[in-house]
Amino acid sequence: MSLTPAAASTLRRALATVVVVPVTPYRADGNPDWDTYAALATRLIDAGISVITPNGNTGEFYALSQAEARQALETAAKATAGRANDVQLLAGVGHDIATAIEAARHAEDHGARMIMIHQPVHPYVSAEGWIDYHAAIANAVPDLGIVLYIRDERRAGRDIVRLVERSPNVIGVKYGVRDATRFAAVARDAGLDRLTWLAGAAELTAPAFWAVGARGFTSGLANVSPALALSMLQALRENDFQAAMQAWESARRFEELRLADGSADNVSVVKEAMAQLGLCRPDVRPPSRPLPPAIKEEISGILTAWGMR
Amino acid sequence: MSLTPAAASTLRRALATVVVVPVTPYRADGNPDWDTYAALATRLIDAGISVITPNGNTGEFYALSQAEARQALETAAKATAGRANDVQLLAGVGHDIATAIEAARHAEDHGARMIMIHQPVHPYVSAEGWIDYHAAIANAVPDLGIVLYIRDERRAGRDIVRLVERSPNVIGVKYGVRDATRFAAVARDAGLDRLTWLAGAAELTAPAFWAVGARGFTSGLANVSPALALSMLQALRENDFQAAMQAWESARRFEELRLADGSADNVSVVKEAMAQLGLCRPDVRPPSRPLPPAIKEEISGILTAWGMR
Repeated sequence: MSLTPAAASTLRRALATVVVVPVTPYRADGNPDWDTYAALATRLIDAGISVITPNGNTGEFYALSQAEARQALETAAKATAGRANDVQLLAGVGHDIATAIEAARHAEDHGARMIMIHQPVHPYVSAEGWIDYHAAIANAVPDLGIVLYIRDERRAGRDIVRLVERSPNVIGVKYGVRDATRFAAVARDAGLDRLTWLAGAAELTAPAFWAVGARGFTSGLANVSPALALSMLQALRENDFQAAMQAWESARRFEELRLADGSADNVSVVKEAMAQLGLCRPDVRPPSRPLPPAIKEEISGILTAWGMR
Repeated sequence: MSLTPAAASTLRRALATVVVVPVTPYRADGNPDWDTYAALATRLIDAGISVITPNGNTGEFYALSQAEARQALETAAKATAGRANDVQLLAGVGHDIATAIEAARHAEDHGARMIMIHQPVHPYVSAEGWIDYHAAIANAVPDLGIVLYIRDERRAGRDIVRLVERSPNVIGVKYGVRDATRFAAVARDAGLDRLTWLAGAAELTAPAFWAVGARGFTSGLANVSPALALSMLQALRENDFQAAMQAWESARRFEELRLADGSADNVSVVKEAMAQLGLCRPDVRPPSRPLPPAIKEEISGILTAWGMR
């Protein structure tokens, strides 16, 4: 068995949207709070979010044990069961090849039809080895749609072409390098229409990336305000860049807080905002940090400006 | 219990040497070849190497499953058992905090007295979170000496000071940022004499780092030629920079092959040289790659120049 062209086409279309990476909320004892995780997933679906990525970076994938990562997938799967028409799971997988394949099969067993392969954390990455790594995982789960996560500007369109030749179930790319012009070139070299391209560095990059070929974007902000992320998507789909840039201005300061100091507070800012809205505790695991009071206050102001407080 | 000042002092002295990161050889079927792993460890000890780091980056830590990483530690422990006067294990641990602690305890159970904590692979690292991450692991194994692996130029001396205040069993730093001047400042701000400082980017950085305070260096090259690495150490200990730079010139081209293209072939070059010497197969796991013929030929020339072929 392997992904049929019709099924691949369906998944590529499903992927062209706001792809939300949910946070992993913790209890006071530091363990994940799975009930709240499930409730937050339901909140996202009810708000109109149609693709959810358990075990993405905003979910603190690299701060979870492998057992916890499996539990995150299972919890997201349970929360979306019975709503297959509304929402798709895009399961994050990573680490060494054997572990990634095991996680991909586990996700498939729980109903996921797509996986996102995290950028390899191995410090020594060659182009050929990058292709081999992804092909080994993709070819082990031929019925799943595969989404690449690229955060390395050295990856060229030709590397992606060679991978897609070996692994036709690759259906999309989350492009996380922030340079829209580099993205435009890579996407064209790799095949703009063959894959669904996502602005992988979220809302602030989305309008420029959309203008040159992206048809969706990933979002951590949508954990707080699904409506803001969806309003940007709607504007981009209508080719209304003025409206998109209004959403961009609304998102700007929040996203800049997440980007500061090499993205140190990427998750902390999202969880603090959610805590202020009563959605979950603000706790993060190291190497993330609890926020200082001044940033918490600034987040309060943003939530007020968004009409959420 | 916790590490006594005398024990800490002994470990700091032991660490001031060539710290070799052994490769993980594979069999033709792709699984690790543990018999060869053990034989190579014995070869290093016989050649005079006194600190070995199973599960470092040259050992392809991030391409091993967690079960394989445990097996690497156990194999190194068996190979060094009974030679405690000759050699110390410095066990690499990483991933999420719970997994790192589990690996540290496993290493301790098998006789290791020191661990090296890999730089967190989590993409969102704050200074406070970096400290919390390392303190959580270090404080869970208070009898072990802790070596930090720093590859992020944002880490300041004051971050290390705050960590050492919370975790007095931190005894050393493998400083992997290549800027010797930055290293000089960080080491002084953190406490030059409180910790043993290693040039963490190997032979080519060792003389400049030694001049400003390092008292050892890590080495992948020593997998091929322990003698060359030890000759550089000897020269540096004698404050003979002219002799050290002769060793540097010998090592140069080999290390430059390992550094090319963002260190893509870091491990591949070492294993290819070892294969040409009949020590193990040249195979690496993705995202590393097998080498093209031109680089293999150049490695032959280097081995000839080293008098090994």
